[in-house]
Amino acid sequence: MAKPRGFEKPAGVKDYLPHVVAKLRHIEQQVLECMKRWGYEQIMTPTMEYYDTVGVASATSDSKLFKLLNNRGTTLVLRSDMTAPIARVAASLLKDAPLPLRLSYHANVFRAIEEEAGREAEFFQTGVELIGDPTPEADAEVVALAIASLQAAGVSRFKIAIGHVGFLNGLLEEKLSESAEAQRELKAYLLSRDHVGYRERLRSLGLPEQAERELEDILRLRGGQETCRQAKSLSGDPAARAAIDHLCAIWDVLDAYGVTEHVLIDLTMIGDFSYYTGMTFEGYAADLGFPVVSGGRYDNLLAQFGRPSPATGFALKTTRILDLVDGGADESGRGRTLIGYDAAGRAAALAEAGRLRAEGLVAVTAQMSAEEAGALERALQAGGPILHNGAAYERFER
Amino acid sequence: MAKPRGFEKPAGVKDYLPHVVAKLRHIEQQVLECMKRWGYEQIMTPTMEYYDTVGVASATSDSKLFKLLNNRGTTLVLRSDMTAPIARVAASLLKDAPLPLRLSYHANVFRAIEEEAGREAEFFQTGVELIGDPTPEADAEVVALAIASLQAAGVSRFKIAIGHVGFLNGLLEEKLSESAEAQRELKAYLLSRDHVGYRERLRSLGLPEQAERELEDILRLRGGQETCRQAKSLSGDPAARAAIDHLCAIWDVLDAYGVTEHVLIDLTMIGDFSYYTGMTFEGYAADLGFPVVSGGRYDNLLAQFGRPSPATGFALKTTRILDLVDGGADESGRGRTLIGYDAAGRAAALAEAGRLRAEGLVAVTAQMSAEEAGALERALQAGGPILHNGAAYERFER
Repeated sequence: MAKPRGFEKPAGVKDYLPHVVAKLRHIEQQVLECMKRWGYEQIMTPTMEYYDTVGVASATSDSKLFKLLNNRGTTLVLRSDMTAPIARVAASLLKDAPLPLRLSYHANVFRAIEEEAGREAEFFQTGVELIGDPTPEADAEVVALAIASLQAAGVSRFKIAIGHVGFLNGLLEEKLSESAEAQRELKAYLLSRDHVGYRERLRSLGLPEQAERELEDILRLRGGQETCRQAKSLSGDPAARAAIDHLCAIWDVLDAYGVTEHVLIDLTMIGDFSYYTGMTFEGYAADLGFPVVSGGRYDNLLAQFGRPSPATGFALKTTRILDLVDGGADESGRGRTLIGYDAAGRAAALAEAGRLRAEGLVAVTAQMSAEEAGALERALQAGGPILHNGAAYERFER
Repeated sequence: MAKPRGFEKPAGVKDYLPHVVAKLRHIEQQVLECMKRWGYEQIMTPTMEYYDTVGVASATSDSKLFKLLNNRGTTLVLRSDMTAPIARVAASLLKDAPLPLRLSYHANVFRAIEEEAGREAEFFQTGVELIGDPTPEADAEVVALAIASLQAAGVSRFKIAIGHVGFLNGLLEEKLSESAEAQRELKAYLLSRDHVGYRERLRSLGLPEQAERELEDILRLRGGQETCRQAKSLSGDPAARAAIDHLCAIWDVLDAYGVTEHVLIDLTMIGDFSYYTGMTFEGYAADLGFPVVSGGRYDNLLAQFGRPSPATGFALKTTRILDLVDGGADESGRGRTLIGYDAAGRAAALAEAGRLRAEGLVAVTAQMSAEEAGALERALQAGGPILHNGAAYERFER
């Protein structure tokens, strides 16, 4: 391609100007504070990891990993999520720390993208990992914390859909034990939420009438606690029934948290992360077609780093939430003081700026002519906005 | 090399555990708040930039840039500093924003390192850029803000050495106009602070006695305001004299700020960034052999992005400061409450946790047996620390 011009930046990455940074920083701070109050402590890991360890263990497909070579020719990746790096730390630096571990993070993550696709190559996630607790209580804790985190971020209207990978796996294995291929295809339709395609493929299989009807009925398994009861009647498969029992237990704990108004059970939901082994969930904000949070249980990942341990967690899609919540009104100079001075008044002006800053106020100093200072004073007396070099101020002193 | 083992991470990068993250986040927040009060607004830019634009414009030598290829085969870099990316934004997204621009940042930056060297491949910088003001007032503002930022970060004892690239350039051009090679060599000795090597090379040049003595005298040009006067007697070169005049003017403004106790003039100092054009400075903490802040004026960089403009700024070496300042005592559970419950008491326990969190306290919930709860209550009554799964708590409720 042609040499990029001076002002260009790579495809899929963003500059954040001050008013957006203020909003992003506010969300980050509110959400991390919420997680802290739930007992989660913040951790930071490197931007680069080994491809052969964290890269391979991550849930991101190989073609979407951003790869690079270090000086020795070893392949590195820019991290694609924080779950695999935190698993590495839990199995190395923190290997002697007793379980459960409650860890939180706010981090930028990366994807190799097709330039045409308009997807993001770098974006922010804010999340937690709860490592070492296999119980429905732990799954419910992270779902309840995801709800509290969305509220802390300023997202008011949303729904969390929870499912379980064991239910579909068990049900499909029971009804279609002969055809792993058909199982894979049906799951792919559900993952892309293509219910029409699912029905067509299902009918083409020529299954016994009852099996076909039961596999079609799961498309309606979406709702509250009653969904669990309906699901139990669909399958005698032990794995599917155990999954339903676990989901019912999670629902009971969420009920004790008092948050079930935000939750629905969706047994057609398949988390798109390969490492999920149990409960998975996604949160959708009102009027948005993509999730603002996703999470689930991944009981096999820690073993890949040498410390077998159950784990569950979630990540908020912080960059998406940024577009969703109100940034507050433009304050146009509120709380900002401009202090003009001439050479003779410099020391007094700088000292006054220091006093204001010590009080927590914003003070900007500028050497200026008597004419310039006079014009600003007239603007102040007229009650209009005080503008100086394009910046707005509430007060002017000289 | 051998395949990395599961728990390994690349050379030169770090994991930050919670107690270190708390310290780093505190420094970041205090310093950014300080910069905000001086009128600087935070900006964020992508981790990846084009090599041909920001990479080439950056002050990092080509061999130390971390390069990677995107899907189209275009060379990208992981940013090596924030000055060049911010110059790009000032010339593109902010091209219509009136000057001066006051921008701040906190960011991770990258270096390609030799694995043997024990250097860092990724570290944090917190800094500002003041774009559009060529005056000594602007240079003094960023030096004074660097001092305030170090204090906000918790660094109490430090010295800021300020110099000017124009003085040495002018003086060497005056005395050694015939030999660009000798000028380069002498500057290299000064950059590495090798005064012995400087003297030896100087004597080998066979200069007239007075010129040799004057070039040797600059090694003693280190001190307060009197250094400016001494320097003026050494050179009649217009560029060197203009540099000294500018430094003297900066000193006067720093005196008005009341911060000269932290500052010394060092005319042998050469900033190690290729883009510096005027005043440069470095800050050293007591008992540390490397700078904790560096900055200077770079009046030619913005033109490379299409918006010619004077600019000055600095970056704190935040990762180094982290090792320098006190992290506060280990709070060992202060303010943390553990709430134990059995199945019957679950809803009440989760509600109590919610109440404590709403008050800003940390609350962790755990389902436990009556025996376990009893043991924790006895520990509480005995006034000892309450430990549960390796975590410490101040209070226990059931």
